Amino acid sequence: MQAVIPVSLPQNSYEIAIASHNLDQIGTWMTNETTKKLGKKVLAVSNPTIFKHYGQRVIDSLTNAGFAVSHCILPAGERYKTPATLQKIYDAALEHHLERSSTLVALGGGVIGDMTGFAAATWLRGINVVQVPTSLLAMVDAAIGGKTGVNHPRGKNLIGAFHQPRLVLIDPQVLKTLPAREFRAGIAEVIKYGIIWDRELFDQLENAPRLDQIRYVSEDLLQDILTRSCQAKAHVVSKDEKESGLREILNYGHTIGHAVESLTGYRVVNHGEGVAIGMVAAGLIAVKMGLWDRESSDRQIALIEKVGLPTRLPEGMDLDAIVATLQSDKKVKEGKVRFVLPRQIGSVIVSDQVEAEVIRHVLQQM
Amino acid sequence: MQAVIPVSLPQNSYEIAIASHNLDQIGTWMTNETTKKLGKKVLAVSNPTIFKHYGQRVIDSLTNAGFAVSHCILPAGERYKTPATLQKIYDAALEHHLERSSTLVALGGGVIGDMTGFAAATWLRGINVVQVPTSLLAMVDAAIGGKTGVNHPRGKNLIGAFHQPRLVLIDPQVLKTLPAREFRAGIAEVIKYGIIWDRELFDQLENAPRLDQIRYVSEDLLQDILTRSCQAKAHVVSKDEKESGLREILNYGHTIGHAVESLTGYRVVNHGEGVAIGMVAAGLIAVKMGLWDRESSDRQIALIEKVGLPTRLPEGMDLDAIVATLQSDKKVKEGKVRFVLPRQIGSVIVSDQVEAEVIRHVLQQM
Repeated sequence: MQAVIPVSLPQNSYEIAIASHNLDQIGTWMTNETTKKLGKKVLAVSNPTIFKHYGQRVIDSLTNAGFAVSHCILPAGERYKTPATLQKIYDAALEHHLERSSTLVALGGGVIGDMTGFAAATWLRGINVVQVPTSLLAMVDAAIGGKTGVNHPRGKNLIGAFHQPRLVLIDPQVLKTLPAREFRAGIAEVIKYGIIWDRELFDQLENAPRLDQIRYVSEDLLQDILTRSCQAKAHVVSKDEKESGLREILNYGHTIGHAVESLTGYRVVNHGEGVAIGMVAAGLIAVKMGLWDRESSDRQIALIEKVGLPTRLPEGMDLDAIVATLQSDKKVKEGKVRFVLPRQIGSVIVSDQVEAEVIRHVLQQM
Repeated sequence: MQAVIPVSLPQNSYEIAIASHNLDQIGTWMTNETTKKLGKKVLAVSNPTIFKHYGQRVIDSLTNAGFAVSHCILPAGERYKTPATLQKIYDAALEHHLERSSTLVALGGGVIGDMTGFAAATWLRGINVVQVPTSLLAMVDAAIGGKTGVNHPRGKNLIGAFHQPRLVLIDPQVLKTLPAREFRAGIAEVIKYGIIWDRELFDQLENAPRLDQIRYVSEDLLQDILTRSCQAKAHVVSKDEKESGLREILNYGHTIGHAVESLTGYRVVNHGEGVAIGMVAAGLIAVKMGLWDRESSDRQIALIEKVGLPTRLPEGMDLDAIVATLQSDKKVKEGKVRFVLPRQIGSVIVSDQVEAEVIRHVLQQM
């Protein structure tokens, strides 16, 4: 099974290649028709665990294809997604004399992808980046669409840039080494695509026997989940490269999700879990506002529960703090918090008309 | 006298407005047809000296036009053009709740402009920036074209992004408070435009009685110098937004210039002086390679001397170190150093065929 999904943009179009054992083909992919203008120098950026598992295979494939490959290993974890860690990539770029035609290869999850993408966006005012996501979350979301960045001590992804990759290379096999909790976090984003874009994908997920661990998911279903999710993301990104319109729907579940992640210091819930909580909240807000039917909201909650993702706020959260945090979110426009709200499974709207009272009411229930 | 020069780009076109007392009109400029989509929030970024001279006028004009203005003062000087100083702008952006529609106003020289532009490029993945350059160097070069960035400890502008301003506002009157040495540094870039693009501008400069201090330059000539230089820069940038072709000619004098600046720790020569030295070197290289006539090179040297700019290397420079530094320059492509070389006054070519021996030979003469 192989899927190649085009991400069509005015400039900088690229492809998402999804196939088992793609890691061993990266050299071929990076010298094909679409990407052949890449220079000879490659700096692979990864974290210790991922690099131990997959680093050598990537380096061998690239070396065999004629690239001069060096690597840079960063500490793992969201708390290292900072300007300080970024300096390590810059230092490696300098040490290995990267040029404007050179390429960073991001081999890892969302943290590695976002930081490496931002380093590529800002080194020499922009060099190439190839995304090789190794987490489900990164495969279906972070690696596609060119959003890159690092965290500010007081807010996630506040420092960043749009910088499209030259290629996104996905090897579903690597998910076998992904911790179960991170797999479930990725499924949260897959459910998101079901709600905002692809009703059939939602149905498929509902019909799957189990989704809490990858070993219960067939290779066919996994390939299908990846392909449909990437297609949804690619479509939305193609229509709206810089998040001025349609792309906003991708923030479904992220408004409250980010606030919960941030207020718990990124230590209690991970990104996917935050999104799961945020989707439940957005769904309940939509129901409360008469935009969505209770039954669909219940189906969403049931699916999230089936995956083993949280549907309630972590204990002891300060509701006022959540509402206050929403105000400092990137997605605020002229002081108004914007919410993505479902109208039906597969279709959402964006609203800046959500009253703080409604938010508070819904959060109290959770 | 007023000039409005369009910078035409596929997206993000903008204008350069040049007129005396423009500082008091910034509010009007920022609410006119071209820029009217700017949000209400403005963060003015400046350094202590510039802000003391001009800050209040800018804030008054913006406030009168309906903007909510806050400000952020950074320490002055190239040595503060670092990721660490950048954090201060990010912190102010967070403190004042800037949104994606908000605008940073860079009120200062190249350092303020580059850092503020880069902060705008990377805060919330890109907000608006208006450039209000207060040095001649920034007016004719740095403020136009969207190059932004900060320095890496081992190289200038290695960390950066392309991010076009929404408006460039130039008030020639502010040059009256510019130190003479900085004025001369700016004239170096004006001479550059004469060599690479505008023979008439070069002739005008040759015919001016004195160019070493602004008080010897008539208001008419000053307006003309600014307008012609900005036109040259705007034209080149319009043809090549991201420096993949024509824009490279703007690096005339910068290849060796950057190396000299960098190797002397940015303390011995300033940017314009580095460019002056670099232009002399590039001219001599062109003569040595049979590309340019000796007489034109002599005219270039004479004009640079007339301004009071250096035409020789600072004492005690290590020539091998210069050649080594060239190799780590951003402008290297696949290991080959690229030089902009004059063919005649007003016209240059780009060459990656300059032998290290020729560079060394020329540097020994200087």
